Amino acid sequence: MNRSSLIRQIRQKKSFLCVGLDSDILKMPEGISHSAQGLIDFNKAIIESTAEFAVAYKLNTAFYESLGAAGWEVMEKTLEFIPKDIFTIADAKRGDIGNTSAMYARAFFENLHFDSITVNPYMGKDSVSPFLDFEGKWSILLALTSNPGSQDFQTLPIGREQVYMQVLETSAKWGSPENMMYVVGATRAEQLARIREIIPNHFLLVPGVGAQGGSLEQVVKYGANNDIGLLINSSRSIIYASSGKDFAEAAGREAAAMQAQMKEFVD
Amino acid sequence: MNRSSLIRQIRQKKSFLCVGLDSDILKMPEGISHSAQGLIDFNKAIIESTAEFAVAYKLNTAFYESLGAAGWEVMEKTLEFIPKDIFTIADAKRGDIGNTSAMYARAFFENLHFDSITVNPYMGKDSVSPFLDFEGKWSILLALTSNPGSQDFQTLPIGREQVYMQVLETSAKWGSPENMMYVVGATRAEQLARIREIIPNHFLLVPGVGAQGGSLEQVVKYGANNDIGLLINSSRSIIYASSGKDFAEAAGREAAAMQAQMKEFVD
Repeated sequence: MNRSSLIRQIRQKKSFLCVGLDSDILKMPEGISHSAQGLIDFNKAIIESTAEFAVAYKLNTAFYESLGAAGWEVMEKTLEFIPKDIFTIADAKRGDIGNTSAMYARAFFENLHFDSITVNPYMGKDSVSPFLDFEGKWSILLALTSNPGSQDFQTLPIGREQVYMQVLETSAKWGSPENMMYVVGATRAEQLARIREIIPNHFLLVPGVGAQGGSLEQVVKYGANNDIGLLINSSRSIIYASSGKDFAEAAGREAAAMQAQMKEFVD
Repeated sequence: MNRSSLIRQIRQKKSFLCVGLDSDILKMPEGISHSAQGLIDFNKAIIESTAEFAVAYKLNTAFYESLGAAGWEVMEKTLEFIPKDIFTIADAKRGDIGNTSAMYARAFFENLHFDSITVNPYMGKDSVSPFLDFEGKWSILLALTSNPGSQDFQTLPIGREQVYMQVLETSAKWGSPENMMYVVGATRAEQLARIREIIPNHFLLVPGVGAQGGSLEQVVKYGANNDIGLLINSSRSIIYASSGKDFAEAAGREAAAMQAQMKEFVD
């Protein structure tokens, strides 16, 4: 999916919501079996009830890999349920030397047909470029994450800057706002403002609104650009909105509530 | 496998060779089908011909993931062929927020029964700790990699140090030399000396000897400690030593030649 299609979808749905399918086989609601088939049924129901409010779905690949070969089949099936005009993200956080990154790109872009993959920048340009070589596909680089450990290395001082700022400045030259986005944790709004100085045009994938404590209003105030330029991810608060048989309806209500908040910002 | 068993094996075999099973379905030799079953047959033959010279096998997971669900089954089967006293490494370069890293740990330690996994440190302590929580398992953190992109962020200056040195200093406190190792590219021997000042006791997993240009003698001179403390990985130069029907014999000869060089250093 190209950038203009994504922006068009955001304006049409008045939403920049990404639903995170961190679907855990141990947390299936009432009426869903704790099995690979259960996960497929769960994801299908969640997608059907949230698709009108979401512009993206993000599959946290670890939750599927933990099931081995069966998990890969669950990912394949899940992707089939996602409407073709909705952006898909493999939250896989890959990155390795060139020929190995190329293998990962094949796995997620060619075999599973994801639109995008999250990529860890630590190994530098030749670990990211193989993902950028795929026409029409996106790399979403980790810049500043939302977890406590983000303070261990990402914010180390480099002169007057910090590591994650150098990651933004350097890596932005490897691709363009047409094929790169960045993961930016939403826990500190003032950091978002600084990030927008460095990369005014890229889309940001923002976890941590809601469950992890970020504020939607602050994120929009400091992180939005003229194209909105944001995908706000919400996982557990939507997919586990209810542990009862009404889990899908509850997920739909939660997604609708997020979209209702986003609507005013798109307008 | 614990540290003392690994060291004992190194002394017995007089080898610190790790064979990298970066087995590419497109590069199968004569007589091996370009299929998942072909990969299994190939890995089995390579393992049988190299096991007496190697103390570790490293599976580059990207090469298997690129085949989807079938690739996971190839990994499972391959692990069954590796003798139980040989150390196994999932070269997966994972790392994510806590609950997600825990899922990856389950995938590679519990389901696939690897002894160790390579971990990307960019997301900090809570992204690494879930791997360290597994008794008897190892995390092998990326510190300084051997690819050109290692110069993009890993060597950025932090005061008088560089990012990768901070990674070593900080992360060494998260575990111990009993459950952590580091990936250190062998392309610059003087860096190995500096690394040994920071982490004198940890094992180092060293790619880049041979095909990527490092010298075994230099690596041992600057990187070895009293327990040897090195695993030298060799992938393509062993597994693709011949593209003919004699590929397994050729791989065995190549591994034997590496072991013969290592023997004098262990003695």
